[in-house]
Amino acid sequence: MNHSPQLVKDIKEQGLLQKLQAFCPKDIVGDDGAVFLVNPGYSLVVTTDVLVEEVHFSDRTTTAFDVGWRAAAANLSDLAAMGAEPLGITVGLSLPGDLAVSWVEELYQGLARCLQQYRTSIVGGDICRSATITVAIAAFGQVLPHRVIRRQNARPGDAIVTTGFHGLSRAGLELLLHPEKGRHLEKVEQQILVRAHQQPRPRLDVLPHLWEAYPESRIGGMDSSDGLADAVLQICRCSGVGAKIERNCLPVSPALSKLVSAERALEWSLYGGEDFELILCLPPSPAQILVEKIGSGAAIIGTITTEQKILLIDSSSSSPAQILTLAEGFQHF
Amino acid sequence: MNHSPQLVKDIKEQGLLQKLQAFCPKDIVGDDGAVFLVNPGYSLVVTTDVLVEEVHFSDRTTTAFDVGWRAAAANLSDLAAMGAEPLGITVGLSLPGDLAVSWVEELYQGLARCLQQYRTSIVGGDICRSATITVAIAAFGQVLPHRVIRRQNARPGDAIVTTGFHGLSRAGLELLLHPEKGRHLEKVEQQILVRAHQQPRPRLDVLPHLWEAYPESRIGGMDSSDGLADAVLQICRCSGVGAKIERNCLPVSPALSKLVSAERALEWSLYGGEDFELILCLPPSPAQILVEKIGSGAAIIGTITTEQKILLIDSSSSSPAQILTLAEGFQHF
Repeated sequence: MNHSPQLVKDIKEQGLLQKLQAFCPKDIVGDDGAVFLVNPGYSLVVTTDVLVEEVHFSDRTTTAFDVGWRAAAANLSDLAAMGAEPLGITVGLSLPGDLAVSWVEELYQGLARCLQQYRTSIVGGDICRSATITVAIAAFGQVLPHRVIRRQNARPGDAIVTTGFHGLSRAGLELLLHPEKGRHLEKVEQQILVRAHQQPRPRLDVLPHLWEAYPESRIGGMDSSDGLADAVLQICRCSGVGAKIERNCLPVSPALSKLVSAERALEWSLYGGEDFELILCLPPSPAQILVEKIGSGAAIIGTITTEQKILLIDSSSSSPAQILTLAEGFQHF
Repeated sequence: MNHSPQLVKDIKEQGLLQKLQAFCPKDIVGDDGAVFLVNPGYSLVVTTDVLVEEVHFSDRTTTAFDVGWRAAAANLSDLAAMGAEPLGITVGLSLPGDLAVSWVEELYQGLARCLQQYRTSIVGGDICRSATITVAIAAFGQVLPHRVIRRQNARPGDAIVTTGFHGLSRAGLELLLHPEKGRHLEKVEQQILVRAHQQPRPRLDVLPHLWEAYPESRIGGMDSSDGLADAVLQICRCSGVGAKIERNCLPVSPALSKLVSAERALEWSLYGGEDFELILCLPPSPAQILVEKIGSGAAIIGTITTEQKILLIDSSSSSPAQILTLAEGFQHF
């Protein structure tokens, strides 16, 4: 007997909506919009992010579950980058009628599972037909106004903090495309890298440590979803400052060191992208406290300077400083 | 001399973002998200809507400006349908690299012009590459918690109010596709119909009248973006009630009467869609006050009943009541 999978066009929009409502809180569904409360005195933070088939994900390296997880993680990371705790997300989905219903359900499972870890949920959405699968998410969060983290808030003398290792997502992709390259790694090391690519974690856990280490605030920062180099460059551009990054202070994960050369590890750390760590700029002593609180992978990697260029220096050698540019960064067009 | 238009891929993501920032408030751009305040005591309302090329719009009948206008109007209408005043929208845009930059600028002009009319703006966005143009919007508004309009709030005995004429958008589309059919209409009548299709108006203007006419609230309702029949059916389904619609009470615009037969005008009024009026259920005497306050096109069109079916009756004739269904309504797949 031949069971062909149920397709979106078989159950139509209403049928699909009914299935997907299982992934949303019961009290929220059915109206034109979702209603919820922002804590008194808090500001609302809104971010949006669009994922497109064959641009941001492909069936070859990503399951529908992981597409959902990564879409949720990317949006929660944008909230974390502003210092905000999540209130919910909406999902605008465009998809072809001949897509399997199970693909859409797995996408929602991935979204819901990731959101659950951070005690938030899908609060609304829209579905329509398109030749290209597109997942457009808007995420809402709240933050006390004086705690908003902004790209423009970095000041000369600030320490530059990374909340974790970089290059792991890029390494995970490499292992998925060429499993033979990781044969000499322990199973658990392979898993760390692949998981960093498939199910990255937004660093919302860092925020309570940050408020404790530096309650006065005015923190500069953003997330490193487009790469560590991109984050430092964007922060410096928006703040009208420069930076010195100490090459030997960039934390390199043991699994990454084992997979590739030091040169390649540096390249992936700077330009790999999709690591979803936070890059934060604050005075050196709270920065030191913060790094200790976060632990594994967190480090002070450099200093904000007045001169408007970004230098990669190596204090242990006599080689000249390199100037960092976006030339190797990610371009969408 | 041959000037070929500038394409998105010529100026890349950063170049396009710079051009589009002209359409956003100055203080809001550059971070991962937008930050704003919800009035103390108000609830946040969030809605989302996705428009796809060749499904919701086509170059043949819609300019980029009108795509933008309609996208903004549809989302503001979703806010109005919940009783909320707008705070802002985010725009997630997917587009091919060989699209003209001017198309994207006109889209944003249409969005911004419509938002301006309702004193709100674009507060954030994301742009990425895709084979299919997709415009995903999330809109945010605020409403006092006891004023939230919900589909589930209709009660037997409520009057059913429409805030305006229906079928005009469908008639405008007909005139755009077959201009010869409208030759016997006055110029201004043609304009009314075409404008209803190209630049529909969300009924945010109705809300102050509604609060004044019925301050106690618990209002049932939604907008008629998928058609008047669809709105009545959805409200009845969510509220577990039925309705009687009086055929002779359905307001028909003079321009529509002149364009088509009474039968066709009824069909377009019920199933045409994209009129973006509000369908509201509240007790008869505040309903009457509301209709008088709104004026032109507003009317009480029927009554909410306990029996769970929707009847279209004609009190002036002996013909039997018709049962309304969604069979002729809009399906996305």
